[in-house]
Amino acid sequence: MENVLIRKLYRETDELLGKDIEISGWIKTLRASNKFGFIEINDGSFFKSIQVVFEESIENFKEISKLPISSSVQIKGKFVKTDGAKQPFEIQATDIILIGKSDASYPLQKKRHSLEYLREIAHLRPRSNTFSAVFRVRSIAAYAIHKFFQEQDFVYVNTPIITGSDCEGAGEMFRVTTMDLNNLPKNDEGKIDVKEDFFGKETNLTVSGQLNAEIFALSHRNVYTFGPTFRAENSNTPRHAAEFWMIEPEMAFAELKDYLDNAEAMIKFVINYVMEHAPEEMEFFNQFVDKGLFQRLNNVLNSDFGRVTYTEAVEILEKSGEKFEYPVKWGVDLQTEHERYLTEKVYGKPVFVTDYPKEIKAFYMRMNEDGKTVAASDLLVPGVGELIGGSQREERLDVLERKIQENGLNKEDYWWYLELRKFGETKHAGYGLGFERLIMYLTGMSNIRDVIPFPRTPGNSEF
Amino acid sequence: MENVLIRKLYRETDELLGKDIEISGWIKTLRASNKFGFIEINDGSFFKSIQVVFEESIENFKEISKLPISSSVQIKGKFVKTDGAKQPFEIQATDIILIGKSDASYPLQKKRHSLEYLREIAHLRPRSNTFSAVFRVRSIAAYAIHKFFQEQDFVYVNTPIITGSDCEGAGEMFRVTTMDLNNLPKNDEGKIDVKEDFFGKETNLTVSGQLNAEIFALSHRNVYTFGPTFRAENSNTPRHAAEFWMIEPEMAFAELKDYLDNAEAMIKFVINYVMEHAPEEMEFFNQFVDKGLFQRLNNVLNSDFGRVTYTEAVEILEKSGEKFEYPVKWGVDLQTEHERYLTEKVYGKPVFVTDYPKEIKAFYMRMNEDGKTVAASDLLVPGVGELIGGSQREERLDVLERKIQENGLNKEDYWWYLELRKFGETKHAGYGLGFERLIMYLTGMSNIRDVIPFPRTPGNSEF
Repeated sequence: MENVLIRKLYRETDELLGKDIEISGWIKTLRASNKFGFIEINDGSFFKSIQVVFEESIENFKEISKLPISSSVQIKGKFVKTDGAKQPFEIQATDIILIGKSDASYPLQKKRHSLEYLREIAHLRPRSNTFSAVFRVRSIAAYAIHKFFQEQDFVYVNTPIITGSDCEGAGEMFRVTTMDLNNLPKNDEGKIDVKEDFFGKETNLTVSGQLNAEIFALSHRNVYTFGPTFRAENSNTPRHAAEFWMIEPEMAFAELKDYLDNAEAMIKFVINYVMEHAPEEMEFFNQFVDKGLFQRLNNVLNSDFGRVTYTEAVEILEKSGEKFEYPVKWGVDLQTEHERYLTEKVYGKPVFVTDYPKEIKAFYMRMNEDGKTVAASDLLVPGVGELIGGSQREERLDVLERKIQENGLNKEDYWWYLELRKFGETKHAGYGLGFERLIMYLTGMSNIRDVIPFPRTPGNSEF
Repeated sequence: MENVLIRKLYRETDELLGKDIEISGWIKTLRASNKFGFIEINDGSFFKSIQVVFEESIENFKEISKLPISSSVQIKGKFVKTDGAKQPFEIQATDIILIGKSDASYPLQKKRHSLEYLREIAHLRPRSNTFSAVFRVRSIAAYAIHKFFQEQDFVYVNTPIITGSDCEGAGEMFRVTTMDLNNLPKNDEGKIDVKEDFFGKETNLTVSGQLNAEIFALSHRNVYTFGPTFRAENSNTPRHAAEFWMIEPEMAFAELKDYLDNAEAMIKFVINYVMEHAPEEMEFFNQFVDKGLFQRLNNVLNSDFGRVTYTEAVEILEKSGEKFEYPVKWGVDLQTEHERYLTEKVYGKPVFVTDYPKEIKAFYMRMNEDGKTVAASDLLVPGVGELIGGSQREERLDVLERKIQENGLNKEDYWWYLELRKFGETKHAGYGLGFERLIMYLTGMSNIRDVIPFPRTPGNSEF
């Protein structure tokens, strides 16, 4: 008898009904009289559990009747229809083999636990309904992203994690070293001799793979990264983590509009894919985590995303009559309150804001004809604010060199980035999507710590 | 007129022949008389280039005739058959628009360059034939791995990169810190006060996600990781890098045999997928990089992998009469020479060696009945040696606690790992596959530095 996944019982019900089957799993609930009992078994392959009925005829009836929650068992029996019951089918057990009896101190008893408490037991929380669903959706969404890009022949590039350069000239970084901190090598001047370090120079954890991805856009045309990135900012907010995953597509022979078109199609593809491949999980989120979830996601699927220039957006905000905490005028960076007002009140759907003042954007973003704005765009979505940031990249060598200088950066540090413009420059564009932000958006979970298996934040590196 | 990818010209030839089309790309070669000329254009979407014919009738004939290699152009013209020519089709240009004229100092001229030299220009080498192929195959292989696991409903888990614990109690690690090395915070005793560091304790880059993956196997049953891992060993070999990607599947309710079956199916799936989706690249590798490649890969596809216990393997080696540099006897770890002898000479196909002496394997591997060996297995493949390592995991709390003690490890450091055995233990098994080793195996490339976009090795963190 082959051991079948509980997922299969739900997905291939008709083929299996009436058959003798074997499953393995963990006890979610158990109640028993002295004649018979019911067990809800979950094996982790599926969001839902399966009901098992057992009777006193089974050999170890008494032992099984008293098993604590989370004990692991192997069950043989018949898979049958149950007319009129809450569950349309169940297993009538003929054998229940105890694999591992759980300790009665198992912390995830039936009562509800706070998300804060569950973070402290990150080794057990994936067994709870909420996190079983979150991490299955995370996996399916990751695959959807790969599928979206691969089906269009984008090349997946693993950009380096340890880096000798600071991509954006900003953002606090984690230092990576093999030097003995208790006995740091010093040079003749008494300064730390980084030549003695593993890489012979100062190295840090990457904040973005974009500049490296540009290399590959200019060789393989359409590429994307999907990997971990790091920020050492000491910020304790529900939206920031020190370690998170980013998707950074980069396209050659492409302008700002191509980024917007690609990003809009990608977001819709991922939502559709997750809705289709995790309907039980999504139903759960819509019912118990975020009651407006389906409405919000369906609205995204059925809308053409709005597109508005920064200049127009500022005019809209100024004329809105809305009292903002941070006053808005041309030249200032938009705050979350402005972003949410635009996407929620003005558009009621996702909106790309384009062509920001050059002063508030990074040096590599392409200068527009007006000399004041750059071909950058952020995607704002209801309920969240900024979900994606990106731009057309400055491909003109002379303009790029000037921008590097104006930004107080060191031209020599960007020698290879500049050479990309020397040997067959082309227009190209790309964007960055924070994967955890996307998962929060897809699930309605409101804290980034609850969509990362083992979150890293100031003071937290457990597990 | 829509801009089409050159890939499309090769893959959807029949639909496009005879049509007016537009492409963009970089000039790979150009030769012109004063009447007409030929350009090989590559746009990075496909391994092969497309030939463009242009005549003096085009507006900027003289300028185009003299363009340096690697200049970027946009071409409009008719896509036509070319009877009898080396290439079965070409584009007859009506317009050629210069996008970016390359500098004549472009280092990748037609002559052959050494792989060592190309590593120094990692920002340009993806444009060469070899690296165009390597990195497209790497991308396709990565997707094949996701596809293999996702189609069996394995859950993709992102285990942490920054970690407060050392998984295997071995392996040199990179320290991660935000402390100012020039002004390290000290405590009352004059020692470095790690409480002042970002995470409030010493943290490092992960060497393996396995222990974390086990958490998810015991909640989601079948899971896998696919992410970067790090080793700070100062080793300069063609097979070692400080930063590399690993795939670590982990399955609950599974024994050693289940790992072997899964790994064998996975390797075959990936080879098949890459052969099917990158035939031009694989043909190139077989012809120019490793003449035995197809034979080797087909042999893998058509073989049932061998399975032999360590004890039997040692007997075979002892009786072989072969002179080994390192003598072999029961209890010693197998060296690459032994591994290659077994897989190449004895089996002539991949072989799993199982049940190694406990002394030479990690503490978490499951003790066998004999009390001397553990349920571990390495997969050895011809031409490479070890490709995969894995084991059934020790699920028995008392045995695991004893092993932790015997290995001189600190029980408290493994509190959550031990608790997994307390709350519904099950047999489970998993393995680790070094992604770069797999790419080397798939392409015949012999240096790990040539299958990583931007390799990190001692002294090298450029780009």
